[in-house]
Amino acid sequence: MTGTLYGVGVGPGDPELLTLKAIRVLRDAPVIAYPAPLEGESLARRIASPHIPSGKTEIAIRLPFSPERGDTEERYDHAAEMLTSHLKSGRDIALLCLGDPLLYGSFVHVLPRIAGRFGVSVVPGVSSISAAAAAIHLPLAIQDESLSVIPAILDAEALSARIAAADIAAVVKIGRHLKKLQTVITTLGLSAAARYVEYAATGTERVRMLSEVSESDSAYFALVLIRKREWR
Amino acid sequence: MTGTLYGVGVGPGDPELLTLKAIRVLRDAPVIAYPAPLEGESLARRIASPHIPSGKTEIAIRLPFSPERGDTEERYDHAAEMLTSHLKSGRDIALLCLGDPLLYGSFVHVLPRIAGRFGVSVVPGVSSISAAAAAIHLPLAIQDESLSVIPAILDAEALSARIAAADIAAVVKIGRHLKKLQTVITTLGLSAAARYVEYAATGTERVRMLSEVSESDSAYFALVLIRKREWR
Repeated sequence: MTGTLYGVGVGPGDPELLTLKAIRVLRDAPVIAYPAPLEGESLARRIASPHIPSGKTEIAIRLPFSPERGDTEERYDHAAEMLTSHLKSGRDIALLCLGDPLLYGSFVHVLPRIAGRFGVSVVPGVSSISAAAAAIHLPLAIQDESLSVIPAILDAEALSARIAAADIAAVVKIGRHLKKLQTVITTLGLSAAARYVEYAATGTERVRMLSEVSESDSAYFALVLIRKREWR
Repeated sequence: MTGTLYGVGVGPGDPELLTLKAIRVLRDAPVIAYPAPLEGESLARRIASPHIPSGKTEIAIRLPFSPERGDTEERYDHAAEMLTSHLKSGRDIALLCLGDPLLYGSFVHVLPRIAGRFGVSVVPGVSSISAAAAAIHLPLAIQDESLSVIPAILDAEALSARIAAADIAAVVKIGRHLKKLQTVITTLGLSAAARYVEYAATGTERVRMLSEVSESDSAYFALVLIRKREWR
C-alpha cells in the first residue's frame, strides 16, 4: 500500500478559516509538507500551525519568491523525490497550500510530478480573493457579471486589456508590479474603483485605495479588487 | 445593542468543507437564515445542518430559482424586514450562503438592505469552482494565467467572447443554458477541453465531458471548467 498526497488548502491567513476536512487530513497524515522561502518561516505552515499535532515528519519545500529566479525546477524535482520516498513507504502526506491548492501556488508544480504514480486528493480552500472581498463587503459577481482573476505579472498591455474587459477584476501577485498596475489603472480611469487589500483575514489586514499605496509601504500578500458597476 | 448579520459561506456541498469560523458563528448566533426554493428544502441549510445546534430561530428566505421570474425584489424586502426585527432586538443572524457569500448567490441582495443600519460581517467560504477543480485535479491558474468566472446566462455572443478571451474559464449558472453553452464551445473548437462537473464535493459528484451531457441528464448544480493550455 502506497501513501496518498493530499493538497490541503489552508485558506487566506486566519487559522479559523481552515475547513474541517483540512484539519482532519492534518491530524491523520504522518507527514506534513509546505512551501517555504529560502530562509525563514513558511506562511502556510504558520496558518495551519494550531492544527498540526506534534510528532509529524515535516518537509519544507524551499523556493525562491520569484519563480523566474534560478533553480526552481530542480527544487521541485528534489521535493518530489522526498515526497515520493514517503509515499512509497505507505505514508500519507498533507501538502499545505495557501488559499486554494489549484489557484496559483506551488501545488500545481508538485502535482504532475506525483500524479499517476500515487494517489492524489485535493482539499479545496478559501481563496485570498474571497477573503479580500469579505473584508470590504464587495460582491465578486452578481447575476450576469463575470469575475476575472488577473496576475499583475503580465506586461502592461496585456494587464490593461484584461482589466478593461472585466466586469470585476481581482488582480493578484502584485509584489514588484505595483507601479505598473497603478499606471494601468490610472490610464483606464479606474482609480476610484480600485481597492487594495493586504493581509486579508490575518491579524494585520489593511485596506486602502490603490492610488494611496506607495512601493515602500506595500505588502507581498496583497490584492486589488476593481468593481466597475454600482451594485447597491 | 443591535445584532450583527453574518454572511456565512457554507462551501460547495460537503459539510466537512465548512470552516471553523463558519461553525463558530452557527453555534453562537441565535437566528439562522437561509435561501430556499419556493417549496422544499434549502440546500445551504442541508449542507450546514450537522453544524446547526437545536433551539435556533430559523428563517427561510423563499425565492424562485430564476431571479427574472416575478416578485424577487419584494421577497428580499420582506426577508430584510424579518432580519431587521431580530437585529433591532440585539440578536445576531447567521445567513447561510452556498459556496462563498460574495460570489453570486443571494447574500449580495440582502447586504444593501441591511448594511449601514446594522453591523455586517462576512465569513468567506470555499467556492464550488475550487471544489470542481479539486474533483478533477485541474489547475485554475498557473503563473501568468488569468481565470475567468463566467455566467452561462449571458447571450451566446457575449458568452463566446468571454470564453474566447479566457486562459481558464469556469462557466457557472448553467441550468437552462446547457444547449447554448454546448454550441458556443463547439463553435470555439474547445469541446476537448470542456469538462462538466456536477455536484462537486457532494455525495453525488459526477464528471463528464460537456459534449456528453444531455439536457435530460443535466444538473442544476454544475459548472464547466475549460483550460486551454497544457500544464503537465
